[in-house]
Amino acid sequence: MGKPKAVITGIGAYYPDYILDNEGLCRMVDTSDEWIMTRVGIKERRILRDKDKGSAYLGARAVEDLLRRTNTSPDEIDLLICATVTPDMHFPANGNIISDMVGIKHAFSFDLNAGCSGFVFGLMTAAQWIENGTCKKVVFVGAEKMSAITDYSDRTTCPLFGDASSAVLLEPTYEDVGIKDHILRTDGIGRSHLYMKAGGSLYPPTIETVINKEHFIYQEGQAVFKHAVSKMADVSVEIMERNDLTSDDVAWLVPHQANLRIIDATARRMGVDNSKVMINIQKYGNTTSATIPLCLYEWEDRLNKGDNIILAAFGAGFTWGAVYMKWGYDKK
Amino acid sequence: MGKPKAVITGIGAYYPDYILDNEGLCRMVDTSDEWIMTRVGIKERRILRDKDKGSAYLGARAVEDLLRRTNTSPDEIDLLICATVTPDMHFPANGNIISDMVGIKHAFSFDLNAGCSGFVFGLMTAAQWIENGTCKKVVFVGAEKMSAITDYSDRTTCPLFGDASSAVLLEPTYEDVGIKDHILRTDGIGRSHLYMKAGGSLYPPTIETVINKEHFIYQEGQAVFKHAVSKMADVSVEIMERNDLTSDDVAWLVPHQANLRIIDATARRMGVDNSKVMINIQKYGNTTSATIPLCLYEWEDRLNKGDNIILAAFGAGFTWGAVYMKWGYDKK
Repeated sequence: MGKPKAVITGIGAYYPDYILDNEGLCRMVDTSDEWIMTRVGIKERRILRDKDKGSAYLGARAVEDLLRRTNTSPDEIDLLICATVTPDMHFPANGNIISDMVGIKHAFSFDLNAGCSGFVFGLMTAAQWIENGTCKKVVFVGAEKMSAITDYSDRTTCPLFGDASSAVLLEPTYEDVGIKDHILRTDGIGRSHLYMKAGGSLYPPTIETVINKEHFIYQEGQAVFKHAVSKMADVSVEIMERNDLTSDDVAWLVPHQANLRIIDATARRMGVDNSKVMINIQKYGNTTSATIPLCLYEWEDRLNKGDNIILAAFGAGFTWGAVYMKWGYDKK
Repeated sequence: MGKPKAVITGIGAYYPDYILDNEGLCRMVDTSDEWIMTRVGIKERRILRDKDKGSAYLGARAVEDLLRRTNTSPDEIDLLICATVTPDMHFPANGNIISDMVGIKHAFSFDLNAGCSGFVFGLMTAAQWIENGTCKKVVFVGAEKMSAITDYSDRTTCPLFGDASSAVLLEPTYEDVGIKDHILRTDGIGRSHLYMKAGGSLYPPTIETVINKEHFIYQEGQAVFKHAVSKMADVSVEIMERNDLTSDDVAWLVPHQANLRIIDATARRMGVDNSKVMINIQKYGNTTSATIPLCLYEWEDRLNKGDNIILAAFGAGFTWGAVYMKWGYDKK
């Protein structure tokens, strides 16, 4: 039979009810709906306002949704991987906490961090465990409470991020579906352009780091934009070419949702029509490792078995990558 | 030829020069050499005193050492995984920073967090990428600046931890060596016994969290000890039994170095003589994801190709596990 491929067999998601729209942001910082929409294309974002809940809560709700929608018992899960840059705590891992919250008792779990590329890096890591025959049912969840690290007095970054979580179930398949190819890349040059300065072992928390607002996302927008536009498109085009895919062959492009202009530039370079690009950035903003599965979740009822799908992401590191998969099931 | 196995083909390590011994600790908190040695068996630990260096610096030095000792060019590396609970920053990932520091340009990289079980969880994750044929040369590095999250006014935890990093090179093999079996487990019950309360999305840093010393390791020693003793021994015995290994067959037990009494209890349950247990906890304390490779590093000149080695770990989460491998090369 040869080696199995890994295929996504279900999706779950959770986002908080509370909506912070651009009008709300205008009351917090000197900005405007027009400025935000023109620059990044975000209209509103969800915020988890509960002070006693972190990203693990969001992750647990998404995994619960996934288990329900796929009719899967927590006991069937072998492995849970959580991608996050906003874990509840430095340790234990968010994956351990989420597993405990949802009653997953027979799986091992760990966290993975690759910035905004967390979904593609994590998906491919989960896939290795499946394709190698080591695990049968793997949950991969991106869970982010970005509002916890967003400075709502910084008008350049506070419009960009939102809170959400989304999870996928991965299983082995011998059919002609599932993950076909991937390109993952890293360039540490990004560490001077996009980072959270304090809170780790380089700059542990002090009263000064708190006062200086160094526990928030720092981004040099122009530098990140420039790299993202070229790198995300490069790997997306490369993965099409080496799999002999024309733009007509591509059913959907699922790009990381950081900036509408980056998404548009990627689709343009690929020659993929806007009608085939999943875009929900206007509703959620950048939810880091949750963006791509949150798109798949919202488009699930339009997907057909065998659809050629390209995932593409770019994020802190810099990390970036593209995944080519054939979708595993008809719309439910 | 079938599928390759993953085998460790080299080790590198780095620990800071500065030694904080028990006498030094006695000048900081109300403790004694006898109390520490009786309870946990630690005599001294290394501390990275440079305020401008975090765990990525330690990791980079260990990876440099690994590349030098294995005569490997940075360009040959496909993937670098860093296990850490003390990354330089929340993002970018330590792995991205380390790759940049050592000139690894053609690899992708990410971080993995499974508490003190980071080495066994990360080693097995790295192994999946190898065994699946996706990568040829993978660097796995555990890098921890535990002193950044240790409260040196808390006499129950400050003797326990130290700073260090160690890295291994993993490659595919078709010989009868390499990783043969593994057991990885997680139980989120641990989240109430061993954690770092603040600094994540659940309790973001505030002046209060800094003043209240909530950015440090919190451990309920008795509860953790009880779980660690039984769980680490359970999986170590289980992996011996299911691979038909008698204690005579085991050349070396390489346990996570958290507490000498836990190590002794594990060896006793396995029936493995103390002379076959790698122990250097007295010199370094608990360096989290760096303990196991740091043992392999120090014992490298006593290892022979084909030696049956059991790795065992237990840590925050709780996470725990055991790995059975046949060592890949004769002493150099």
